Amino acid sequence: MLNGGSSSGKTTVARCLQTILPEAWIALGIDDLVDALPTSLQDSGAGIVFGPHGEVTPGEGFRELEAAWMTGVAAMARAGARIIVDDVFLGGAASQERTRMQLAGLEVLWVGVRCDPEIAEGREIARGDRVIGMAAAQAESVHEGVVYDVEVDTGAAEPLECARAIAAHVS
Amino acid sequence: MLNGGSSSGKTTVARCLQTILPEAWIALGIDDLVDALPTSLQDSGAGIVFGPHGEVTPGEGFRELEAAWMTGVAAMARAGARIIVDDVFLGGAASQERTRMQLAGLEVLWVGVRCDPEIAEGREIARGDRVIGMAAAQAESVHEGVVYDVEVDTGAAEPLECARAIAAHVS
Amino acid sequence: MLNGGSSSGKTTVARCLQTILPEAWIALGIDDLVDALPTSLQDSGAGIVFGPHGEVTPGEGFRELEAAWMTGVAAMARAGARIIVDDVFLGGAASQERTRMQLAGLEVLWVGVRCDPEIAEGREIARGDRVIGMAAAQAESVHEGVVYDVEVDTGAAEPLECARAIAAHVS
Amino acid sequence: MLNGGSSSGKTTVARCLQTILPEAWIALGIDDLVDALPTSLQDSGAGIVFGPHGEVTPGEGFRELEAAWMTGVAAMARAGARIIVDDVFLGGAASQERTRMQLAGLEVLWVGVRCDPEIAEGREIARGDRVIGMAAAQAESVHEGVVYDVEVDTGAAEPLECARAIAAHVS
Repeated sequence: MLNGGSSSGKTTVARCLQTILPEAWIALGIDDLVDALPTSLQDSGAGIVFGPHGEVTPGEGFRELEAAWMTGVAAMARAGARIIVDDVFLGGAASQERTRMQLAGLEVLWVGVRCDPEIAEGREIARGDRVIGMAAAQAESVHEGVVYDVEVDTGAAEPLECARAIAAHVS
Repeated sequence: MLNGGSSSGKTTVARCLQTILPEAWIALGIDDLVDALPTSLQDSGAGIVFGPHGEVTPGEGFRELEAAWMTGVAAMARAGARIIVDDVFLGGAASQERTRMQLAGLEVLWVGVRCDPEIAEGREIARGDRVIGMAAAQAESVHEGVVYDVEVDTGAAEPLECARAIAAHVS
Repeated sequence: MLNGGSSSGKTTVARCLQTILPEAWIALGIDDLVDALPTSLQDSGAGIVFGPHGEVTPGEGFRELEAAWMTGVAAMARAGARIIVDDVFLGGAASQERTRMQLAGLEVLWVGVRCDPEIAEGREIARGDRVIGMAAAQAESVHEGVVYDVEVDTGAAEPLECARAIAAHVS
Repeated sequence: MLNGGSSSGKTTVARCLQTILPEAWIALGIDDLVDALPTSLQDSGAGIVFGPHGEVTPGEGFRELEAAWMTGVAAMARAGARIIVDDVFLGGAASQERTRMQLAGLEVLWVGVRCDPEIAEGREIARGDRVIGMAAAQAESVHEGVVYDVEVDTGAAEPLECARAIAAHVS
């Protein structure tokens, strides 16, 4: 379970993990859920709202679908699939607690993907397809009170190096 | 559950359904699973092999991940999410039977998405990113022995019309 | 030179043409220019504005870049490249006249890609990534006063068939 | 004119440049030309061949189209457009010489985008959509004998910083 702010490099680290881990791991992310929603919910009060300065406000409808989605991802893992999830704990410790309950009975490696806010914002600008401000707004708040097994810093090391540090904890 | 061959228009019909259905439906497809696999499995004997003439041969490793994935999708639905799945029943009736067991206890609308093989092949050529031959090879075989609640023909009607015909059966 | 409204199927027809023509043709479109612009110009008064109901208003800055772009495309053709361009003549006959001057000295096949406005709007909904209204707004206006060598109707024939009809006029 | 090996970060640097430069710059790259080719030429002897270990061998047909394309890009610039091109000088100094002639009369800032081969290879793995080996094979060879106005190192600085260093030379 990779947790990190927008543009912190989670997805790239996940792809590197898939490449270097000897077994086949499926990579899923909260962005995949957003892409699977009806366009009407991708930026609306009922779904998920992206504010002009990078605020992300999930509506009640989105929260329910998100909970169902994570329940399903947990079921995939219980059915035997190895899964790398990349997520954004908008609620910090509370999000981790909720996720921990959804993943009950599963072996989970909690990974913090950190990145200096300024570097994350630079990458957000470089991507060109994100609302500017999300990276800086989330860079530290998503880690508040969250407890990790491993932490990596994508501002200090290349994604592949970060993946190697994580892989060392995967049995 | 939309079943149809490659390039039959399933994904487009699913997107239209999301637009016209009054409730929020998540759209997931077997292509999403393939995209979530490690690159090494996307075209290999252990994973799924795409032959030069459009043959698709899922390996044992892929079949296991696919079963876990469908189990998870079913769990999402049991947790309350409305889901449109687009799938390719490579094994025809046997695939439907296996899927039926995975979806036990859920309300399922079985939808056949048909398309004249020649038209599907034309669309495959037009997409430019698929192995030529998949569309023709699958156009009829994926429907063999499969029982549907509704059938649509994307060669005879536009995707939005097909979606309207399906939506009329969704309560 | 393929001219047609948004979601009329120009790009798909262009891809089919590339597949069936015996020589190597480069496919370029006005959408490529929009993608190559800075994000800040992709939806702004200085660049190109996409209104809430599908209106497209190119600003002065965009018009200048567009003219430079078409001049360059013409230069590629003069240098010996075979090129399929897909464009949207927002100004109808006036756009054709301007384009004709930019392409002076080149052999041009003018192709109208038509599509019933209702069908184009259905496809726009199906794509899910376009402002709804562009297809209907442009379906007929872009053809006003434009003179063609060939016309195809993507609502009445599959893209590959349309491409075959066009290819018959390419020497 | 940005020159650098595959996965050296040219495109990301170009996007950052578009964001920070006060004027509107169009970003074009040799990858756009490859995407505009018929699928049949994207990996064939007549077009451009991508070998199993990252070798890139442009055929005669591709070279001709590439020359026509660069002639067109130069014409866009002569017509007044500001253009950022990202290219891969497979032939090192000889490629620069050929490009210099094509851009005759234009004001060109020659920029070397360097990246440690090992870091570039890590990024290539992280992308997951490139033949492994291209990054390492090209990392140094594309710079052989090439003369630059500015050089940046994307392994040592973030893309946005590299863009700022380049922008300081753009009048």
